[in-house]
Formats: sequence, structure tokens, C-alpha cells
Amino acid sequence: MHVLVTGAHGFLGSELCRTLLRDGLPGDEAGAPARPLTRLTRLLRPDGGASAALQADPRVRSVAGDAADGALLDTLVADGVDVVFALGGTLSSEAEADFARGLEVNLHGLLRLLEACRLRAHQPRLVYAGSIAAYGGPLPDTVDDLCRHTPQSSYGTQKAIAELLISDYSRRGHVDGRVLRLPVVIARPWPQPRPSVSDRVGALVREPLAGRDVVCPLEPDSWLPIVSMQSAVEALRALAGVPASAFEATRAMNLPSLSVQVRELVRTVQTLPAWRGWRRPLGQVSWEPDAALQAVVGGWPQRFDSELARRLGLVVDRSLPHLINRYINAHVESAAA
Amino acid sequence: MHVLVTGAHGFLGSELCRTLLRDGLPGDEAGAPARPLTRLTRLLRPDGGASAALQADPRVRSVAGDAADGALLDTLVADGVDVVFALGGTLSSEAEADFARGLEVNLHGLLRLLEACRLRAHQPRLVYAGSIAAYGGPLPDTVDDLCRHTPQSSYGTQKAIAELLISDYSRRGHVDGRVLRLPVVIARPWPQPRPSVSDRVGALVREPLAGRDVVCPLEPDSWLPIVSMQSAVEALRALAGVPASAFEATRAMNLPSLSVQVRELVRTVQTLPAWRGWRRPLGQVSWEPDAALQAVVGGWPQRFDSELARRLGLVVDRSLPHLINRYINAHVESAAA
Repeated sequence: MHVLVTGAHGFLGSELCRTLLRDGLPGDEAGAPARPLTRLTRLLRPDGGASAALQADPRVRSVAGDAADGALLDTLVADGVDVVFALGGTLSSEAEADFARGLEVNLHGLLRLLEACRLRAHQPRLVYAGSIAAYGGPLPDTVDDLCRHTPQSSYGTQKAIAELLISDYSRRGHVDGRVLRLPVVIARPWPQPRPSVSDRVGALVREPLAGRDVVCPLEPDSWLPIVSMQSAVEALRALAGVPASAFEATRAMNLPSLSVQVRELVRTVQTLPAWRGWRRPLGQVSWEPDAALQAVVGGWPQRFDSELARRLGLVVDRSLPHLINRYINAHVESAAA
Repeated sequence: MHVLVTGAHGFLGSELCRTLLRDGLPGDEAGAPARPLTRLTRLLRPDGGASAALQADPRVRSVAGDAADGALLDTLVADGVDVVFALGGTLSSEAEADFARGLEVNLHGLLRLLEACRLRAHQPRLVYAGSIAAYGGPLPDTVDDLCRHTPQSSYGTQKAIAELLISDYSRRGHVDGRVLRLPVVIARPWPQPRPSVSDRVGALVREPLAGRDVVCPLEPDSWLPIVSMQSAVEALRALAGVPASAFEATRAMNLPSLSVQVRELVRTVQTLPAWRGWRRPLGQVSWEPDAALQAVVGGWPQRFDSELARRLGLVVDRSLPHLINRYINAHVESAAA
């Protein structure tokens, strides 16, 4: 199997690449075992990003380029790709600050990728990282698969449009797509130079565990929908194994997620290491709510129900301690070992 | 006031042009009277379409061109336009039969129009003809403003995307947009060479009243959401007078409409002329349901509620006889007089 990952320099993208190289793709629809990767093409940022790690694997080919470059996407997709994981795009804060750039990458870039797939003889499977930012405006207490999209950001608008396009291209057989709406993914293991909203939440986990103090920009009683990076990667991988026949009116779904209060998230990060016998000092959290960030987070759905994801067998973290433990196992203890 | 109408060759577009030239735009937000048109630019099909009628009015300028031609749209919008009525685009059947053309006109053409508005110093108001085809898949009995979009056609997908784009451009102040989702509009007064789904429904009104027999391609008990051409035009015109402050999470809304069964529509057309004292013979209806058309119509919402349109004061036909009478007054008796 030949897999293409766009946005492979990101923290989800790089973890997905590692997982796919180790575990392959899920088994086929008849219950066969996982299918190993024979080739992995990684589309990285033009400057290459954090690309060194997997370069020793002979199956891996790294290409640096823009996720909106149609000619490049044509070439990559035409090269016998079986599955595309489309994670490339600008982040929420960037799409809001630079409208033209967000439109170019998140809308026109996706359209070029879909057209590259449509014009091939054999249509690849496409797994797309959507976002809960597609929701916005007045929302019910629990957002289920039937809830409308009235996004209140340009990023969310572009993500909602992506769902519509991928569902239509799939209905017509031009691609075999599926879209997973991701909540806040906990957490980037490395500090970012230009933190996104979700990284500002992620910092509440990453920084104290790295022994650094952190300012919490949200009210303690704010609700957040979160998922571990491992759950997000595993759900993206699992979606690549779902047969097209499992979908009906749409290819898009919510990833079920934990809904937690910021206070609870901070407390768990502060108390869990002691239970594990840690003696290292933890960074401390101080509180300075940021009204702009609070407004963005307050506009997100707080609780999700996703009948479709449940029916497809997507599973996520059992609890907040489970989620934090997964972060510690993957990024703190392994680094310390 | 300078108004641009794209798709002005269509039957809605041409009636809208006539209405605007006669009645102007709705009064301003402070309750001032209607504002007269000083200029009307009509964008017609490249072949000019049905363009002759209004050409004698010195306020009217007719331009023939493609609704997806970005350079042309730039020129037209830059020419001091106050309000754009965006009715140009491919029809449902065309967008489904020719995917690339539908995408080019209905998606890229709209994007070019929005970009032309964004890059101007003073952003125009934009009124866009949306469609109930944006709905599809499993739907509740009554479709209200909170219902999600899972369109089951490429046309519907493009219309749903248009709503998202126009809402986001408006939120950012790049344009002052509003989208009206139209149901089946009754009816084109002239027979079409390539009938659309909505014209095949319209023919059930037009043909018998013109003395011609017609084949009904739908089951007698099918439900249809319909509106008169006059109501649709008046609602589009009214939306141009609504202040931007009346909108919240979205700029899109359902036009409230009548829900009628095909049997009732046919019976009203057959009996209403006698009540008006007609002696002319009516065309007869024979029944030959077409499974493909039945599937399309069966996928539409059957009943609508639109709290937003109601709040904005949009009104439509009071009853089916009222709707049919409006058609007769406008297109049959006036032609016979």
C-alpha cells in the first residue's frame, strides 16, 4: 500500500506517519489483517519542517512543497497512491488573520487535491482532518450528527465546505472520502513558536509536565472537548479501513471526545504524576483569562454525540487520567528514559 | 442606486429586473420610502438570452458574458454597484450532468464575484438565490432553520457551499450578503428547450393554462414545496432592504413556502379558470411517473419553517389558489388582453 500524508510535518501528521509505518493500514472489509505500508510519501512544509525523524526508513519519501500547489498534488496523487491522509492546511488563527491565504490553502488547495483524485483512473481513499470549528453560533447542549454548520470563523467555514465537497466527490465516485471532525488534540509535545488556540490548551498539559510554568488563558470553569493525540491518530487510521458502503448521506462525522472543564484538566495534570511516583518538579499554572480566546472556545460545542462514529467503531480515551497518561507515556517518560 | 443582476436572462432574473425598474429598492432602515433605480446592469448569457424586453429603458445596460468570468465580474462590480442580485449559475440537471461546469460556474464563479466585492473600497450588498437542494438525505418532517445540510446532488452541494462562503464574507465585512433558499418557483411562462426539475413541475401549471396537454412525471400524492414567481421576486427584493444588523449566526434562510400534493396542484389548475369565468379549453394532464425525477423530488424537504425569514417580514402566497391566480394574472390574462 502506498500512502500519501499531507501536512506530515505537523504533530498529528508526524505521529500518523510513525503509526502507519509500524502498524500499516487496517485490514480489509472481509476481516483480513492489517495491510503493511510499502511506500509512504510525506508532503512537508516548503522549508521541510520537522522532517528528519523518519528519513532513515527506506519506504519513506519526503517532498517539501505547498499544500495548495496543484501541479505538485497532481504528481503525487498520480504516483499510484492508494490512500491520502489530507492533514495539510493553515491553522485557525492563520486563516482568520490572513483570509486570502486560508482560502488559498484550505479551500483551493483541497479542491486541487480532489481534482487530482477525480482525474485519475483509479480513485484513492481520502481521509481528511476536519474540525469542530465547523460548528458555531447558537448550538444545542449536545451536538450530534444532525446539527447544522454555522461556523463563526473563516477556518471553520473552510472546514465545513471541505465536508460538503468531500461528500459530493465521494457520492459521485470521484474519490472515496471520509472526514473526521477533530476537537482539541492533546497535545503537541514541542512548544510552538506561533501557538494556535488548540496549542494554548495543549500547553496546559505540556508545560507543567516539562517542569515549566504556564499561564492559563481560560476561565477555570470553561468546558473543552478534547481527545488524545493517540486517539485522533488511531481514528484517522481506522477510518481508512471503513468500507465505502458504511456511509449514507454524508462522509463527515464528529470524533466522540471527552468534555472536561479547564479546572479539571489542570488538576489532573498536577496530581497524576505523583500517583505514578514522579519526583520531578512540575511547572505551576497561573490564571489570566484572555477574552478573545475565551470567546473562541465558548463558541465551540461542549458536548458531542456521534452516532456515525460509534457505528463505525471509532473509540477514544476512556477518561481524562487515561488521556493524560497516554501523553506522559508517549512524550515524557519515553524522553526521560 | 445602481443594481447588478447576474442571470438576468432567466425567468426570475428578468421578472426581478422589471420589478426593480418599476418599484426600486426597499426603503432604508429608518423607514424611508423605496429608493429608485438609477442604473441597472444585467449580466445575460453569452448568447444574450431573452434580453430584448427591457432594452428601451435608458437606465438599463445589458452585458453578455459568462457568470464565471472573473475579469468581467471585477469590471461590473467595480463600476459603483450598490446591490448585486446573484442569480447566475447552472441549473440542477446541468450541474449533475457536467460536474466540472457546475463547479466552475456555481462555485468558482461565486468565489470570483465575492473576491470582486472584497477587493472594492465600498462593499456592496449581495442577494443570492439559494436552493432547497442544499438539503438532502434523511430529514425531519419539518425542515427549520436549524436543520443540517447533507445535499445529495452536486448542485445542492454548490448551493450549500455558497451559503457558508457568503456568511463568512459577510461576517468579515467583505460583502453584505444574504441568501434565500428557494423551493420550486411556479412557473416559467415560456416552455424551455431543456426542462429542469423545477420546470417539469412548472409545466403542470403552464401547459394546461396555455391549452396544451402535459404528462405529469410525478406520483399524484408526492409533496412539493412551491412558491409563486411573484413571491420569490418580492422576497429577493425585500432582502435587499434588510439591515445587516438583523442577521446573527448566518446570512442564509429558507423562504417559507406552500407544501402541496401534486394531485392538489393539478386539480387547482383544472378548476380555478372556471371560477374566473374562462371559456377557453384547458390542456389535459396524463400521469406517467418518472422514477428518477420522483427520487429527486422525494429527497427534498416537504415542509418548511423559517423563523428567520418570518422575523425579517418575508411573506409568500397565502394559498394554492392565490398562487395559481397570480400566475394567471401575470402570464395568461395579460397575454390574452
